[in-house]
Amino acid sequence: MFSHVKDLQFEAKPDAPDAAFARRLQEVLGGKWGEMTVANQYLFQGWNCRLPGKYKDLLLDVGTEEMGHVEMICTMIARLLDSAPLSIQEAAAEDNPMLTAIYAGANPAHFIHSGGGPLPADSNGVPWNGAFITASGNLLADFHLNVTAEAQGRLQVARLFHMTDDPGVKQLLRFLLARDTMHQNMWLAAIEQLKDDGLEEMPVPEAFLDAEQENQFAYQYIDFSSGEEAAEGRWASGPTPDGKGQFSYQSTPTAHAGAPELPPGDPRLHCTPPLGN
Amino acid sequence: MFSHVKDLQFEAKPDAPDAAFARRLQEVLGGKWGEMTVANQYLFQGWNCRLPGKYKDLLLDVGTEEMGHVEMICTMIARLLDSAPLSIQEAAAEDNPMLTAIYAGANPAHFIHSGGGPLPADSNGVPWNGAFITASGNLLADFHLNVTAEAQGRLQVARLFHMTDDPGVKQLLRFLLARDTMHQNMWLAAIEQLKDDGLEEMPVPEAFLDAEQENQFAYQYIDFSSGEEAAEGRWASGPTPDGKGQFSYQSTPTAHAGAPELPPGDPRLHCTPPLGN
Amino acid sequence: MFSHVKDLQFEAKPDAPDAAFARRLQEVLGGKWGEMTVANQYLFQGWNCRLPGKYKDLLLDVGTEEMGHVEMICTMIARLLDSAPLSIQEAAAEDNPMLTAIYAGANPAHFIHSGGGPLPADSNGVPWNGAFITASGNLLADFHLNVTAEAQGRLQVARLFHMTDDPGVKQLLRFLLARDTMHQNMWLAAIEQLKDDGLEEMPVPEAFLDAEQENQFAYQYIDFSSGEEAAEGRWASGPTPDGKGQFSYQSTPTAHAGAPELPPGDPRLHCTPPLGN
Amino acid sequence: MFSHVKDLQFEAKPDAPDAAFARRLQEVLGGKWGEMTVANQYLFQGWNCRLPGKYKDLLLDVGTEEMGHVEMICTMIARLLDSAPLSIQEAAAEDNPMLTAIYAGANPAHFIHSGGGPLPADSNGVPWNGAFITASGNLLADFHLNVTAEAQGRLQVARLFHMTDDPGVKQLLRFLLARDTMHQNMWLAAIEQLKDDGLEEMPVPEAFLDAEQENQFAYQYIDFSSGEEAAEGRWASGPTPDGKGQFSYQSTPTAHAGAPELPPGDPRLHCTPPLGN
Amino acid sequence: MFSHVKDLQFEAKPDAPDAAFARRLQEVLGGKWGEMTVANQYLFQGWNCRLPGKYKDLLLDVGTEEMGHVEMICTMIARLLDSAPLSIQEAAAEDNPMLTAIYAGANPAHFIHSGGGPLPADSNGVPWNGAFITASGNLLADFHLNVTAEAQGRLQVARLFHMTDDPGVKQLLRFLLARDTMHQNMWLAAIEQLKDDGLEEMPVPEAFLDAEQENQFAYQYIDFSSGEEAAEGRWASGPTPDGKGQFSYQSTPTAHAGAPELPPGDPRLHCTPPLGN
Amino acid sequence: MFSHVKDLQFEAKPDAPDAAFARRLQEVLGGKWGEMTVANQYLFQGWNCRLPGKYKDLLLDVGTEEMGHVEMICTMIARLLDSAPLSIQEAAAEDNPMLTAIYAGANPAHFIHSGGGPLPADSNGVPWNGAFITASGNLLADFHLNVTAEAQGRLQVARLFHMTDDPGVKQLLRFLLARDTMHQNMWLAAIEQLKDDGLEEMPVPEAFLDAEQENQFAYQYIDFSSGEEAAEGRWASGPTPDGKGQFSYQSTPTAHAGAPELPPGDPRLHCTPPLGN
Repeated sequence: MFSHVKDLQFEAKPDAPDAAFARRLQEVLGGKWGEMTVANQYLFQGWNCRLPGKYKDLLLDVGTEEMGHVEMICTMIARLLDSAPLSIQEAAAEDNPMLTAIYAGANPAHFIHSGGGPLPADSNGVPWNGAFITASGNLLADFHLNVTAEAQGRLQVARLFHMTDDPGVKQLLRFLLARDTMHQNMWLAAIEQLKDDGLEEMPVPEAFLDAEQENQFAYQYIDFSSGEEAAEGRWASGPTPDGKGQFSYQSTPTAHAGAPELPPGDPRLHCTPPLGN
Repeated sequence: MFSHVKDLQFEAKPDAPDAAFARRLQEVLGGKWGEMTVANQYLFQGWNCRLPGKYKDLLLDVGTEEMGHVEMICTMIARLLDSAPLSIQEAAAEDNPMLTAIYAGANPAHFIHSGGGPLPADSNGVPWNGAFITASGNLLADFHLNVTAEAQGRLQVARLFHMTDDPGVKQLLRFLLARDTMHQNMWLAAIEQLKDDGLEEMPVPEAFLDAEQENQFAYQYIDFSSGEEAAEGRWASGPTPDGKGQFSYQSTPTAHAGAPELPPGDPRLHCTPPLGN
Repeated sequence: MFSHVKDLQFEAKPDAPDAAFARRLQEVLGGKWGEMTVANQYLFQGWNCRLPGKYKDLLLDVGTEEMGHVEMICTMIARLLDSAPLSIQEAAAEDNPMLTAIYAGANPAHFIHSGGGPLPADSNGVPWNGAFITASGNLLADFHLNVTAEAQGRLQVARLFHMTDDPGVKQLLRFLLARDTMHQNMWLAAIEQLKDDGLEEMPVPEAFLDAEQENQFAYQYIDFSSGEEAAEGRWASGPTPDGKGQFSYQSTPTAHAGAPELPPGDPRLHCTPPLGN
Repeated sequence: MFSHVKDLQFEAKPDAPDAAFARRLQEVLGGKWGEMTVANQYLFQGWNCRLPGKYKDLLLDVGTEEMGHVEMICTMIARLLDSAPLSIQEAAAEDNPMLTAIYAGANPAHFIHSGGGPLPADSNGVPWNGAFITASGNLLADFHLNVTAEAQGRLQVARLFHMTDDPGVKQLLRFLLARDTMHQNMWLAAIEQLKDDGLEEMPVPEAFLDAEQENQFAYQYIDFSSGEEAAEGRWASGPTPDGKGQFSYQSTPTAHAGAPELPPGDPRLHCTPPLGN
Repeated sequence: MFSHVKDLQFEAKPDAPDAAFARRLQEVLGGKWGEMTVANQYLFQGWNCRLPGKYKDLLLDVGTEEMGHVEMICTMIARLLDSAPLSIQEAAAEDNPMLTAIYAGANPAHFIHSGGGPLPADSNGVPWNGAFITASGNLLADFHLNVTAEAQGRLQVARLFHMTDDPGVKQLLRFLLARDTMHQNMWLAAIEQLKDDGLEEMPVPEAFLDAEQENQFAYQYIDFSSGEEAAEGRWASGPTPDGKGQFSYQSTPTAHAGAPELPPGDPRLHCTPPLGN
Repeated sequence: MFSHVKDLQFEAKPDAPDAAFARRLQEVLGGKWGEMTVANQYLFQGWNCRLPGKYKDLLLDVGTEEMGHVEMICTMIARLLDSAPLSIQEAAAEDNPMLTAIYAGANPAHFIHSGGGPLPADSNGVPWNGAFITASGNLLADFHLNVTAEAQGRLQVARLFHMTDDPGVKQLLRFLLARDTMHQNMWLAAIEQLKDDGLEEMPVPEAFLDAEQENQFAYQYIDFSSGEEAAEGRWASGPTPDGKGQFSYQSTPTAHAGAPELPPGDPRLHCTPPLGN
């Protein structure tokens, strides 16, 4: 069960409106790696966690914080959308190329659909969707996803930082950059914790018996492309990170099965039959 | 530029058809973490790689291998779809609950749309889409995504392994499990290689100056949810994995900004204005 | 800013697992009219509200409650997914048609993707998406949407109530039915309040000048289909609900403009040109 | 069965082309609240209506009219797309900021995909989809949706009216504003008619027995957010609009169930098990 | 402008309900090649047609007919959904495997969302979307699309014909099969007519000057895959169907450009830079 | 199984960057008719082909070539994205309307998400999806689709050719135009070959018995729209292209069934019942 306070975790006020930047900022609200994704992903992982205790607590803590980040970015976008030129005539009236760029570079749905407010969508107006998140039930697989989610998220915020001069916007981005630093570290620490607790190991899922897989292919680098530069990497020789094997290198791929030939299908499906059928 | 041989990397032949399992197998073909995702993700990362040499070679090698995995699973699905009951009468004719389950548990589009062949879609028939992949240009962020892609993928194959008794199907899954073992190890090794080469560090992006972020929030665990169990984890005290700080723990969240109040909008947008406006 | 307590607003525990019903229950979690929709819709409406005071407070209150409803249904679904038959052989082993129905009627992604947990998707596994919600900035337009959201939601819960015999499931549905009763009443009351406060009227947007629209068409029922039964309804004669006019009835449609003829397009677009061009 | 006349219901001819406005106008053609939505929604409600007579007739009448509105907006968009600058060089050739804004603010697919014609998509080029419509079979739930569809639609047309100076475009918008006025009134009248006919009441569905829901929660406003301003509204005290109860106000939420603990899952799903498992 | 009569173009009444078949029939209503696609495609092509006369008339005629086909299939689906078992207990109560198959093989949204009515979605419940249609403005390109739309549509109807024993359903399918026969013939005739009228030729677009393309690659079959069987086909030697050239055959692909090397990106995007940067 | 060489099939290097054109070029990469579509479509058709020999070889050959086209366009887009203005200030700094147009007309996700690289999406940033392709198992139906895919694709490339002055870009487009010429011819030849081989005929599917369809409707043009211009076309009189009949013309549509009346639904679905029920 959730409760809400009206105050914000951090200030979300631009020095001046900029509807074209508001569109860009949508990427970290409703894009694949935006705040809606991390908030929902951590909460679903928490609700799906069959392990009571610190991991479930962690997931619900951080998912709840991210809901507050959604709120801050929504607030920032609403403020960036003020005072935008609504028509091409208005945009072109003054000899000001920034007005033209704001008119043409803004998201029209910000005005027509949401009346100057944020949308649950990315920087192109494509709606956020549930396939952006995964809660697999396997915490090691998911914590690795969470590391990349925070890395991709911080990368995007860093890029946005270079796309504006507005001090108020930059101040919020500084806060988000710091929280993403924390969260990258946190999920890396959680990966180590899971291993220390003896709950999971690489490769995921550890509990699947090695004997059941085709082990001859389990540590072999196969080169499917011209050039042998990949042979120089750590992934082509030496011990494997899971501590269970040695990488080997195969310079050209081998086919282990002949060309497949499919039988004629059910005639009631009216696929093209073989000649003479 | 690509070329193709008709032989398969590994055999893809079930001992018997099973259209209900064919639907399930679609998850690792066209689902979020299926072979279409890894094939396209690694190829786009390779094409987007501005760093000539072993990393670009690695990405194109493995992406090309995954195209061959798409092919094997497509072949397996086509064969699993043979001889399925097409009508409810046919399914119910014999007193065989497996026929009923196959009729009802199959994907109707497997017959109506593709005539007994695979679809670029997941186990519910939802089409694969390009938002499943990311090629951010930052290799460390992306290699972490690749680790989780292979971990989620191997997890799904392991689950599917327990959902069938068919020896031929299990044989292909054993091969895929082994390659996913290799690929998890490979991306973990590639992460270490990137660091050894001095190209990137955590937190991503390393090149963003620490001085630009709000450092007071960069290593602080904030507890937004009842229960203090999360305080016991590695992520709440001790050195941070990036080697640059110490985790601290804050047991209740602090709001650093007041409740936001938005100005009245442009009257031409006809949003509800404040009272007395 | 949000905080979270681990306790649930209401109990969410089935008496027995039923994976086929778990799939059905997804409709009111991640379907168009599910809890994810109302939670996000009310929160976005609140964040987008430029009117401080009781309306903004109302929206944030109820949006926050709905986040807790998302949590309860997620919990229920996770529990309904326990002990399901994973393979067709398992489903068919005992002579129990319910096992077959559960195998075939379940969502395979519940096992392959989320490992026995809920998904942000509808009863067919189609992901929730941001286009399900609207926060237009005009409270009267949006409160009408909220009325229908609660009506459609309660209708779906009532239908689900008849699709299960499980006492634990029914108990949670009883709670949701009651809250939907409250919320339908609440949004109807909020519509009245908005009018009492003099903030908006029908037709929305009231502030658009009547003089600007083609008033001759503003109260005219036009019959485009055979049969004149519609002429018997309240919408074809008598005073209009907005109190500003009288309905009139036109039994056959009139065309007020000739057939459009488009000029030849830009030859660089290579559209088929008119003959002789 | 439908038939078609070539004449238009109303004139749809701009005084001058404007490809940037053509993109904006797509919102009321193929956006969530556009003409494709209302046309399809009313027709599906009509085809799904199990009640012969005036309601079914009404739905099919108005759905058919809306098909003609789709046609008018398509025609307008095709005409607005004439004579647009196709390349950046062309746009920048004259010192005319409007040409730049048209080049940059247009939808490229209007030229590349449809060759200067309309698309079944919104103002960002996201395709219209079937989830935009609902035909629930319960007319009271659906008529409330229809009220908001017409209110959101008129709101969007009113906003577009302020985004152009073109007299021909404004003339078509004036007609649409008037029809949306009619249709808001019409659906409100239809709601009253349904009640007068004794067919349905609030809360929907009326036929679900009150005794089956948890009545103690059916009229209670629960405050989940800081600030008590919502307590001042009509929704927190006094009689409820359904005429069956009195609103009550609870200033802080109560949890009625303890923290959920999920049992360990099926080991074949390889979720992280509890410690010591 | 459209008008509607209540009578149907052809009877749409099953002899008995079958909710599992209703789900399957959705494919030809709201699937990629269903009636919603052809109706909308032909109408958009008509509205986008800049050529007055017989072609525009043809497109609007047939698009209007297809709207009536949407209606017939909607009606059939509503009737097929009657009397379905709503719960697993009901489905399993009698020893009737057809009831189990109907429960498990039906689309749950048919009951929960639409209350026993059709949905604008395919046989897996994935919503119809606007990207299914194309109106390119080039009639020859589009008429070829229309041929395949009718061929794919007839193929799907023929498959459905074998998936049911119901005489009433089969009767409607017989009608649709005949209309699809007509429409395949009609679009083939329209292709010939376009050429006779001198309006367009293959390859599309004819008006693009041959001199502008790299003619050495315009008639060359290049073999990118093992096996030379493709060399036996008409496409590898002899005159080309456009009458302008001769096919040639190249047994292995040639690369005409070296391996691309991308320059380092803008450092503000934080992509991984080359070593030593 | 695939392999890859680093060299490109043809050069893909612009003379100068242009981020706004990069966005436009996405249409032929990840749009409905782009290279991702044809590559995946031909490969899935090949894998789904139950007919060994020249047709399967053809499909796999050309699908593999198209993978190399995906690669060339990806490379071109990455290069076009260099040196773009990242902020509105940068775009407006010089008095250069082309910079403003590039800022406003570019796809923000090209920078924020992919760091200056291509995306698997169309010119509006909408992701490519699997529903863009069809592999029906019936080669004649699919070869007709392939003709239109190449025709729509060449049409789009021809339009893009007129949207840029860049010699390097135009050079790649010249190559693509030539290959699309070849591929249109190739699929037309394949259609003839299929008929010569006696494998399939129009109407598809030929094997469905004529006696099973309602033959009275199989060659009849029915006019559903005002105007009789369509009667002048080849499709309204004379022999039909399938060689089996004569077109006839019906100037007004006939309804062959009365208005449908649906029975009251299951009361547990709470649809509005008929009056007096």
